[in-house]
Amino acid sequence: LTIETARTGRQRKADAIARLEAIHADTWVATASPSGAVHLVPLSYAWTGEHILIAAQPGAVTARNIVASGGARLGFGPTRDVVLVDCALDRVVDANDPAATEAGVRYAEQADWDPRLESDAYVYLLLRPRRIQAWRESNELDGRLLMRDGEWSV
Amino acid sequence: LTIETARTGRQRKADAIARLEAIHADTWVATASPSGAVHLVPLSYAWTGEHILIAAQPGAVTARNIVASGGARLGFGPTRDVVLVDCALDRVVDANDPAATEAGVRYAEQADWDPRLESDAYVYLLLRPRRIQAWRESNELDGRLLMRDGEWSV
Repeated sequence: LTIETARTGRQRKADAIARLEAIHADTWVATASPSGAVHLVPLSYAWTGEHILIAAQPGAVTARNIVASGGARLGFGPTRDVVLVDCALDRVVDANDPAATEAGVRYAEQADWDPRLESDAYVYLLLRPRRIQAWRESNELDGRLLMRDGEWSV
Repeated sequence: LTIETARTGRQRKADAIARLEAIHADTWVATASPSGAVHLVPLSYAWTGEHILIAAQPGAVTARNIVASGGARLGFGPTRDVVLVDCALDRVVDANDPAATEAGVRYAEQADWDPRLESDAYVYLLLRPRRIQAWRESNELDGRLLMRDGEWSV
């Protein structure tokens, strides 16, 4: 068993951003209803530099929970190289609304499908990272907090 | 791009059980507090054939949420070969309670650590699967429900 040396905070930040920029990747999206019913599902995503974009049908459990609760917790990466992001919902836009053009272009570039081309109605959920943690093995639990209150701490 | 043929229900069940039996693997554990605050973290697990075992310090958010809500939603596998399990909490046992011996032995066999050897106090949470879904790509969304109300449907 080889234990890698714990990464620096700066390296973890760079790795976390690379994860957010990954092409054709999915993130585990955990949400809860106002009554505390938990939901979890993997979804495609894109990163604008400011928001994590996910797309969903407006009636989907994930979309309803995010709108009701105002946020989500996202898990990226394999379980031994995780990035965990607590997000706040900034905006919801219909995929075919002209106001969504920038999000739609970005999403289609990074995700592996384009909700604008679907016959069903989709929305983009613009999620702003508020808290980011990243670790690989237990030796990286110290120093795992990279962003708090929306500000990078490394 | 090669799209694999959708697996049969029987094959998905076999694959899902193999995933539950995987050695040294982690699962994404999504939980919610009674007030609807969502939590998500990867944890080691073991499978007894009846329960998914996870171990946690009793004060950890995951343990507190599971005890308060009575359940969790677990995500296994990479995001393009997922098994999603909604679980009900059957029991919580202290890792060093003699009543936990069977769970402790099983957990130590399958997970890559042994909570009984830690100086901090741990509990095992015995989670009973109630609903299981499994899919790889979008062509497997049909037929993804493998268990409902605790009974395999395939």
